Amino acid sequence: MPQILDLSPAPLAQARPPFVAGVVQMGMTANPAENLTKAVALLHQAADEGAQVVCLPELFRTPYFCQHLNPAYFDYAEPVTGDTVTTLAGVAKQRKIVVIAPFYERVDSRLTYNSAAVIDADGSVLGIYRKMHIPHDPLFEEKYYFAQGDLGFKVFHTNYGNVGVLICWDQWFPEAARATALLGADIIFYPTAIGWQPAEKEQFGELQRRSWRIAQQAHGIHNRCVIAAANRIGLEVLSGDGIEFFGNSFISGCYGELLASLDHTTEGVITATVTPATIEQSRRWWPHFRDRRTDAYTGLLQR
Amino acid sequence: MPQILDLSPAPLAQARPPFVAGVVQMGMTANPAENLTKAVALLHQAADEGAQVVCLPELFRTPYFCQHLNPAYFDYAEPVTGDTVTTLAGVAKQRKIVVIAPFYERVDSRLTYNSAAVIDADGSVLGIYRKMHIPHDPLFEEKYYFAQGDLGFKVFHTNYGNVGVLICWDQWFPEAARATALLGADIIFYPTAIGWQPAEKEQFGELQRRSWRIAQQAHGIHNRCVIAAANRIGLEVLSGDGIEFFGNSFISGCYGELLASLDHTTEGVITATVTPATIEQSRRWWPHFRDRRTDAYTGLLQR
Repeated sequence: MPQILDLSPAPLAQARPPFVAGVVQMGMTANPAENLTKAVALLHQAADEGAQVVCLPELFRTPYFCQHLNPAYFDYAEPVTGDTVTTLAGVAKQRKIVVIAPFYERVDSRLTYNSAAVIDADGSVLGIYRKMHIPHDPLFEEKYYFAQGDLGFKVFHTNYGNVGVLICWDQWFPEAARATALLGADIIFYPTAIGWQPAEKEQFGELQRRSWRIAQQAHGIHNRCVIAAANRIGLEVLSGDGIEFFGNSFISGCYGELLASLDHTTEGVITATVTPATIEQSRRWWPHFRDRRTDAYTGLLQR
Repeated sequence: MPQILDLSPAPLAQARPPFVAGVVQMGMTANPAENLTKAVALLHQAADEGAQVVCLPELFRTPYFCQHLNPAYFDYAEPVTGDTVTTLAGVAKQRKIVVIAPFYERVDSRLTYNSAAVIDADGSVLGIYRKMHIPHDPLFEEKYYFAQGDLGFKVFHTNYGNVGVLICWDQWFPEAARATALLGADIIFYPTAIGWQPAEKEQFGELQRRSWRIAQQAHGIHNRCVIAAANRIGLEVLSGDGIEFFGNSFISGCYGELLASLDHTTEGVITATVTPATIEQSRRWWPHFRDRRTDAYTGLLQR
């Protein structure tokens, strides 16, 4: 009689430990110092609530100045060694949290970017993501202020987990989320500044809000990872009727399910746990990555 | 005084006319002849309701035999010149409708595919799409029955509009939808066979259903086109506890909004109008295609 082998499965590969993601939603004033003070207070609140990796909204230091063209606004730009990142790095180190710190990045008089620094829990800057897809539409005239990102898609191996960062307009591009997930992101953060144009709000506002959510929830499904979007609130009028930023910041899971969310008027913090074991389970149940037809995707490199 | 030119905009480019898309949802029996008869009846119903481009569910001729491995099931396969496509081509010609006709395609004893023929309104076969992403998971053991598609992503220029076809598992891959939209699809049809495993339904059923919808609605948002999914219904037990196919067929618009949908038990037809002018308007409001970073997407060709 042949020997019967014990073929029960060996234990699962040891998953990395869970961590808590946090998202800050806030309204901005015309005063960059006030905005920084408020952001710092909300980071402390997030840390008090247990968040370990916390994201602020896009360009949180300033009003959303891209509503119109004004060369004076280039003064808002600062290097990664400037006030914004330095101040937030202090909070990161003090509270042992990772901070996704959006800032208007000035390299020199030739180049400025719409960027986010990823600050690790010891206060060191792990790296910068520069917004790759730059919009330019009525009231969102970003191509004037920002060169398109030149650092590509990135994942940052932080003290708590593998973090991807994309910024606002990037959220409509499945290529960006996929490229970031392929690099190993457990979670993709989207610092954002999106809102309603008052004249459109009644007819299209709810459609736009839901469209924005679904477009990103699906990135989490397609890539089986967590998605976290940090938007601003408040009516800011720099041109025409201005923009009513619609908040609705959220965190969603591997099945697109909402884990935490805010409405369009509340300032505050939301948190949710990111569990690498859950991500792995989801990818075993729906093993999309196994079946990607990389031999057939060259059309994606065409316009 | 300089001459003042009339700079008011010239009229919009003439948009192609709207057309009506239809989706058939049905349950299957073990009898392929019965399934074809039912499909023909539902195509006539769709035509009666004004549909001009109509899609049937994946592998509608047969039970979803991929629940387990049985070489006898290869007998279900037939060439594009077989009964399924020939019969449906007759209906297409008679009713002047375009039919998306999924069938188990046999080329010869070496190669079989999970395919869909696109039959134009004159009854001619415009071409075939062969499912590019093949699943293989418990109860969905497709890699045994189907070679992976070798014709790439396609758009079919039908009598009524530009039609893309992807099949079931393809729906989780943003690359497939994007590649199809880049070829000019007004609408992407997803013939589908997806359901609940009875033991999972209570805990995960609603999560899976919503996840399936959102994943596809977002393709419509990311690509600003219409999405139409045709699923089957009914409990089919060929292995274990079988699969309860969950229907929920739907048509959604450029903003991901549901235009028409069915529940998980109803046989029937849904229709919605596809308006190229609306698609163009949506792409002017949210001009994603303009801003794609084709210089930075080579990572998508990697595993």
